[in-house]
Amino acid sequence: LLAGNSIGKEFTVTTFGESHGKVVGVVVDGCPPGLPLDTSDFQEELDRRIPSEPKIVSGRIEKDTPMVVSGLFEGYTTGAPIALMVENKETKSCDYETIKNLPRPGHADYPARVKYGGFNDYRGGGRFSGRVTVALIMAGTIAKKLLGRFNVDVLAYTLAIGKVKTDKKFTPQEIRKNRYEAATRCPDLACAERMEEAIVDARQAGDSLGGIVECIALNMPVGVGEPLFDSLDADLAKAVFSVPAVKGVEFGAGFRATELRGSQNNDAFLLKGGKVATETDNAGGVLGGLSSGAPIMIRVAIKPTPSIAKEQQTVDLSSMQVTTISVKGRHDPCVVPKAVPAIEAAVAITLADHMIRAGFIPKVLKEH
Amino acid sequence: LLAGNSIGKEFTVTTFGESHGKVVGVVVDGCPPGLPLDTSDFQEELDRRIPSEPKIVSGRIEKDTPMVVSGLFEGYTTGAPIALMVENKETKSCDYETIKNLPRPGHADYPARVKYGGFNDYRGGGRFSGRVTVALIMAGTIAKKLLGRFNVDVLAYTLAIGKVKTDKKFTPQEIRKNRYEAATRCPDLACAERMEEAIVDARQAGDSLGGIVECIALNMPVGVGEPLFDSLDADLAKAVFSVPAVKGVEFGAGFRATELRGSQNNDAFLLKGGKVATETDNAGGVLGGLSSGAPIMIRVAIKPTPSIAKEQQTVDLSSMQVTTISVKGRHDPCVVPKAVPAIEAAVAITLADHMIRAGFIPKVLKEH
Amino acid sequence: LLAGNSIGKEFTVTTFGESHGKVVGVVVDGCPPGLPLDTSDFQEELDRRIPSEPKIVSGRIEKDTPMVVSGLFEGYTTGAPIALMVENKETKSCDYETIKNLPRPGHADYPARVKYGGFNDYRGGGRFSGRVTVALIMAGTIAKKLLGRFNVDVLAYTLAIGKVKTDKKFTPQEIRKNRYEAATRCPDLACAERMEEAIVDARQAGDSLGGIVECIALNMPVGVGEPLFDSLDADLAKAVFSVPAVKGVEFGAGFRATELRGSQNNDAFLLKGGKVATETDNAGGVLGGLSSGAPIMIRVAIKPTPSIAKEQQTVDLSSMQVTTISVKGRHDPCVVPKAVPAIEAAVAITLADHMIRAGFIPKVLKEH
Amino acid sequence: LLAGNSIGKEFTVTTFGESHGKVVGVVVDGCPPGLPLDTSDFQEELDRRIPSEPKIVSGRIEKDTPMVVSGLFEGYTTGAPIALMVENKETKSCDYETIKNLPRPGHADYPARVKYGGFNDYRGGGRFSGRVTVALIMAGTIAKKLLGRFNVDVLAYTLAIGKVKTDKKFTPQEIRKNRYEAATRCPDLACAERMEEAIVDARQAGDSLGGIVECIALNMPVGVGEPLFDSLDADLAKAVFSVPAVKGVEFGAGFRATELRGSQNNDAFLLKGGKVATETDNAGGVLGGLSSGAPIMIRVAIKPTPSIAKEQQTVDLSSMQVTTISVKGRHDPCVVPKAVPAIEAAVAITLADHMIRAGFIPKVLKEH
Repeated sequence: LLAGNSIGKEFTVTTFGESHGKVVGVVVDGCPPGLPLDTSDFQEELDRRIPSEPKIVSGRIEKDTPMVVSGLFEGYTTGAPIALMVENKETKSCDYETIKNLPRPGHADYPARVKYGGFNDYRGGGRFSGRVTVALIMAGTIAKKLLGRFNVDVLAYTLAIGKVKTDKKFTPQEIRKNRYEAATRCPDLACAERMEEAIVDARQAGDSLGGIVECIALNMPVGVGEPLFDSLDADLAKAVFSVPAVKGVEFGAGFRATELRGSQNNDAFLLKGGKVATETDNAGGVLGGLSSGAPIMIRVAIKPTPSIAKEQQTVDLSSMQVTTISVKGRHDPCVVPKAVPAIEAAVAITLADHMIRAGFIPKVLKEH
Repeated sequence: LLAGNSIGKEFTVTTFGESHGKVVGVVVDGCPPGLPLDTSDFQEELDRRIPSEPKIVSGRIEKDTPMVVSGLFEGYTTGAPIALMVENKETKSCDYETIKNLPRPGHADYPARVKYGGFNDYRGGGRFSGRVTVALIMAGTIAKKLLGRFNVDVLAYTLAIGKVKTDKKFTPQEIRKNRYEAATRCPDLACAERMEEAIVDARQAGDSLGGIVECIALNMPVGVGEPLFDSLDADLAKAVFSVPAVKGVEFGAGFRATELRGSQNNDAFLLKGGKVATETDNAGGVLGGLSSGAPIMIRVAIKPTPSIAKEQQTVDLSSMQVTTISVKGRHDPCVVPKAVPAIEAAVAITLADHMIRAGFIPKVLKEH
Repeated sequence: LLAGNSIGKEFTVTTFGESHGKVVGVVVDGCPPGLPLDTSDFQEELDRRIPSEPKIVSGRIEKDTPMVVSGLFEGYTTGAPIALMVENKETKSCDYETIKNLPRPGHADYPARVKYGGFNDYRGGGRFSGRVTVALIMAGTIAKKLLGRFNVDVLAYTLAIGKVKTDKKFTPQEIRKNRYEAATRCPDLACAERMEEAIVDARQAGDSLGGIVECIALNMPVGVGEPLFDSLDADLAKAVFSVPAVKGVEFGAGFRATELRGSQNNDAFLLKGGKVATETDNAGGVLGGLSSGAPIMIRVAIKPTPSIAKEQQTVDLSSMQVTTISVKGRHDPCVVPKAVPAIEAAVAITLADHMIRAGFIPKVLKEH
Repeated sequence: LLAGNSIGKEFTVTTFGESHGKVVGVVVDGCPPGLPLDTSDFQEELDRRIPSEPKIVSGRIEKDTPMVVSGLFEGYTTGAPIALMVENKETKSCDYETIKNLPRPGHADYPARVKYGGFNDYRGGGRFSGRVTVALIMAGTIAKKLLGRFNVDVLAYTLAIGKVKTDKKFTPQEIRKNRYEAATRCPDLACAERMEEAIVDARQAGDSLGGIVECIALNMPVGVGEPLFDSLDADLAKAVFSVPAVKGVEFGAGFRATELRGSQNNDAFLLKGGKVATETDNAGGVLGGLSSGAPIMIRVAIKPTPSIAKEQQTVDLSSMQVTTISVKGRHDPCVVPKAVPAIEAAVAITLADHMIRAGFIPKVLKEH
C-alpha cells in the first residue's frame, strides 16, 4: 500500500501513532487462527525494550502496558485483524515546542517538515521517533510466537557499541541466556560492561554512540523467499531499515566477503545427519534470495543517536538564518540496546510473512 | 504481488525469462505518458552490461538486441504498460545437464530445487542467473530517462575488486566520463587497471573475486520516501538485493558510522545559495527514510562469483553422496563490472517509483 | 495485502474489530496532510447510521462515540496514519452462545466456521456483522471531506424497499435535503413512508426485506480510474461489495442496457458551457473504466436481512442433524437504511483513492 | 500495484499490448510449479474467442497463435513467471486516423485522451479495445487448468442477447456440450438461433445489441475468500469489470432478491450425502464474502457495442464543434459471444487466486 505504514504481504503489519500522541499502535492482519496469545506475551517483549540500567537510557522511562482491542477470542487468534495499542504517558511536549523551527542535525525534522508541508506532528520526532518501535515489537511478539510454533527462533543481540566490540562466538544458548542480562544487550557480559562504560563516557561528553546489532534465525526450512524481488534477504533488509538509525545491513560475511575469493567464500555442501548442510555460513543462510537451511545471519549498523547536548550548527527555518542547537530533551546516548528487540521484531515479522508465503505455516493452526 | 517478480508501487517493474529460455523480458507499468523513448535508448544501456575486455568476462558474449512490443506510440510512452524483451541466443544448455543433481556451492541451485519441487529450469541457473539483470537494465533505462527529465542523475561505479580499492573522491563529471572507460567500471583508471589484473590472477587460479559498487543519485528533491516502512533507504536496499551476489548495503558512512560519535556523524545544517544544505553526507542523503536533499550514496557488497573452476565439495542429490564439483561453464571470474549497470538500474527504478509517489513526477509529462 | 482487511492503494483503509469485541476501528493511511478534521465530523456521520424510527431498527441502539487516537495535530491531518475507534457497548453475548453450532441460513456462520477452523469470534456474527460498517463510515468521513475539498459530492439514498419503489428523479438538492429526513433514507418522502410500512409488515410476519440503494458522485473530473484492472467501476463495485448483504451492482442503465440498442444506450457527446458533456448518462459516468465527467451513478442490490424470527431449516454442526432455527437476537428487519451511509462511505473511499491516484488530489493540501 | 494493469495477489496477471500494436500479451506470476501446460492449451481457448459464424462478428478475423516465451520447462510450469503473447496481424490503422479527434460515444476515447494527455495509442481503441481480452483468455487458460486439477469447473454462457432470452435451466453437461456449438454461446440452441437473428437485424440497421452472460463455478470448496475487503464476490465483481462493456454484476438472485422476503431468499441448510448443503442457491454460492460450497453463480450485463454505423452526435476535439460520427471500422454488432470466454477467464483467474490464498492449492503441485 502506497502510504508506507504497512509491511508484509501475508502477515501484514500496519502501524500508527506518534511519540507524543495518544497511543502507539499496530494492526496485524493475516495471522492464522488458532495461535494462543495473551496480553502477557506482549508485556514481556515490551519490557525488554527499556534497559534497566538508568545510566544508559533517557529520562523518559515508560512502563508500556499493551492493550489488545481486537482479533483474539477465548485466548486464541481468530483470523481477524489483531489491533494492539500502548498509551503514551510520559510526554513533555514543552521540551520540543521551542525547537519547532530548528531541525536537529541527523534527524528527520527537516525533510519531514518539507514533505508534510509543516503539518506533521513534530513533538518528540512524532512519527519518526524511536518510540514507534513499540508497535514493531508488539507485532514482532505475534510473529515470534507463530515462528516458535514451527521451531524457528529469532535472536538479536549487540556486537559493538562505538569502538567496543566483542569477537566471541556465541552458542544460541548463551545468546538466549545472556543478552537481556546486560543493559547493552551483548551476550559477552564482560564486553557488555565495557560497552556500558563507553556509553556513560559519551553521555558525559554531551555526545552519543552507535553500534552493531547481529540477528540470527535458527531452524529455518530450505526454500523460503520469493525471488527475484521479494527475496528473503531483500525483504529482511527492507524491514530492518524501518528501525530508526539503521544505516547498513549485511548477511553472513557481508562486506568482508568482497575481499575473499570464491573458493574461500563459498559454503561447501556436505551431509549432516543425512541432510544437505554447510560447515561455514558466509552466505548468512540465504542463497539466491532463498533460505538455504543454514542459520540466517544479519548484521545491522546503527548510527550514533543524533540528539546530543553538544552544540551543533543548524538553520532556523523561520528566519532562514544559520544558528546552533543543543538538544535538551530526554534522549538515549545510545539507541543500540533499544534497537535490539526492534530488529528482532523486524526480522521475525519478515520471516513469519515469508514462512506463510512459502507454505510452511498453514492457513489455520489446528482444528478446535 | 505475492509471487515476487514485481517491484515498485507506482512505477512497477515485472520481470520474466530465464537464462536459457527464449527471452528475458520486463513489463514496466506506471510510466507517465509523454516520455520520448526509443529502442536505441535500451541498446545503449544494454551495451554497457558487457565489458569490452574479454580477459575479465565469460565466454558467453551476448549482443543483446532490445525489442519494444508495447506501450510506445509515435516515439512517446502512452501510459500503457511497456513490454520489452531480449532474445537469448548463446545458450549451450548441454553444459548444465550433467550437473543437474550437483548443487553448486554459493548458488541458488539447492534451495531452488527444494522450493520448486524440481520443476525449476536449472539450465544456467535459470531464473537465478545474472542474465536476468538484462530485464532490470531495460526497466532502469526508462527510469533513468524519466529521472533525467527532473534533473536526477544516478551513477554507479566500482570502488573495490577483491582487495584492490580506490580511495579517490570523484566528481560527478569524472564518474560520468570514466566509469565505462575501464572494463572494471572504476573511474580511477589507474586503479581500474590493477583491478583488472586482480581478476585475471583469480581466473588463472580457477578462482573468482567480489568487490564493492558505489551508487550516487544527484539532485534529489527533499522529502522523497514513504516512512515508516517504505522508507527511501529501505526500498533502495530491497531493490539492490535483487541484483545477484549482493550481500550488503550501506548508506553514507554506513558501518563506519557505528564507530563515530554523534557529533562526528551528524551532518550539520547550513545554508548554500539560500537553501538548507549540509557540508558532509554521512547520512548518504537519507534522514528518517526521507531524502534530505544531499546526494544519495549507497555502497553495495558483491560476493566473489560462486562458479569457479576450482574443485569444491558438494552433495549429489540423486545419490545423496558427498562428491566434488568443478564448475565448467562460461562464467565471469568477477561479476562486479556487470553488477554496476544493474545496481544503477535498481536504484533508478526505486527513485523513479518514489519520485512519482511523492508527487515530484506528474501523471502526464506534458500536453501534446 | 493478502489478508483482505485493507482496501485502497493510495488512500488505504484497514479495518479491525468485531461485533461483540472491545472496539470497531480503522486505520486510514495516505490521507494528505493539511485536511482539517475533528471528532465532530465523525460523530455526525456515525449518527446517520441509526435511523431514529425505532419501528424499523433492531433493539440494539448504539450511540457510537468516535475516538481519534493518531494522525491529527492541531486540527489537521498530518500525513501519518489516522486511527479511529468506537467502543462496543451494547453487547448481549448470551443471545448467541446457544446458536454457536446452528449456522443461520443466509449468514456467513457456516463458511466462516469452516474457514477459520472454529476459532472465529461468532458472537453477533463477529467480523461479518453489519456493525463493522462503523469502521467504513469513519473512513468514509475522511474520504468525503477530502473529496469535498475538490468539489466532489457523494450521495447515497434508498430507491426501493422490497417491492415499494420510487420512480421520481431527484435533484442533488432534494437528495441532500430529504434523504436523512426519512428513516428509510428515501428522498421521496411519500414513498419513504410506504417503505416504512412495508418494513413494519415484514417484521410483524417475523420476516425481513431488502431493497435497492443508489449512489451518485457529482463533479468528478474526467479521466479518473486505472484500467485495465483498476478501472473506476471495477474498484467501486469491489468496495461496495464490502457492505454486508450486497448482491448486485450496476452502473447507469446497468442491466437495463442489455435490452437497448447501441443507438439508444450510447450517450451522445455535446457541448455544455464550452465543455464536452452528455445529455443522458446511461454509462453511469464511467467509460472504459475512466470517469467521463458525467455523474457517477451506481445502483446496489441489498438482500433481505437473513436473520428472521420465522423458523428456518438448518443443520446442527455438533450432531450433524437437520434441525430448525428461529433467530431471536436484536436484528434489523431491513438493513437498507443502515446500508445507505455505508455505501456512501465505500464509494467515497474508492473515489478519494482514485482521485489521488490520478493526480487530482495533491500530496500536501496547502502550505502552512 | 498502482498502474492498474495487474490483478490477483497470489496468482497475478499483468497484461500488456494494444489493439494495433505489435502484440497483446500477459505475464502470469504465482502459478505453482508442476502444472503441465502446452501451447495447444492456449490455442484451444483462443479459438473459442471468435465465433465461426461470420454474420455476427466483425470483419477482423484473427487466427491468434499463442507464443509462450518463459516459465515453462519440459512441459511443466516452473514457478517462474509465464509470459505469453499473440501477434496483432490484421490491423488496418488507417481506419482510425480520421477519427482521431472525434470521440466515439460510449467509448473510452474521450476520457482516455484527457487522462493520457493525448499520448495514448488511440488506434482501434488501443488499450481499451476488446482485443486485449486475448491476454485475459491466455491467463484464464492457466487458471482453468489449475482449478481443474482441484476439480473446480468454470463455465460461462449467454443468457440473453438484447430482448431474446432463454429461461431454460441447464445442467453442467448441457452447458459444456452446447455453449460453443452456437455462435452466440447460448446452450439453448433454439434460443441461440433467435439470438443470432436479432444480431443480424441490429447489424442491418447499423445498430448493435448487448446481453447477459452467466458464469458458474462448480465444486468450489467452502471458505474461499478473504473478507472484509477481498471478499470472493467483491474480487469476482472487480475482475469481471475488466472485460470491456460490462455494466452490471449480480450473484445468485441478485437484483431479484431485493423483492423477496428473507424467508424466501435465504437458502436453508440441509444434509446431502452427510455434508452441509442447500437446495436453492439464491446466494450464488457466496455468503459473507466466502464460498458456501454451493455453485458460484454470477450474471453479467453487457452493453450494446458502442461502435455503430448509425450516425451519432459527438464533438470534434480539435475544433471543439459539435458534429456527427458514423463508426466505419470492422466492429462486432454484439460483443456478447466474445465476452463469454473473457468472463470465464476473469472468473477463473479470480478463483485460482483465491484458491491459492485460502490454501486449497499448494505451493508446489507434485514432487518430480
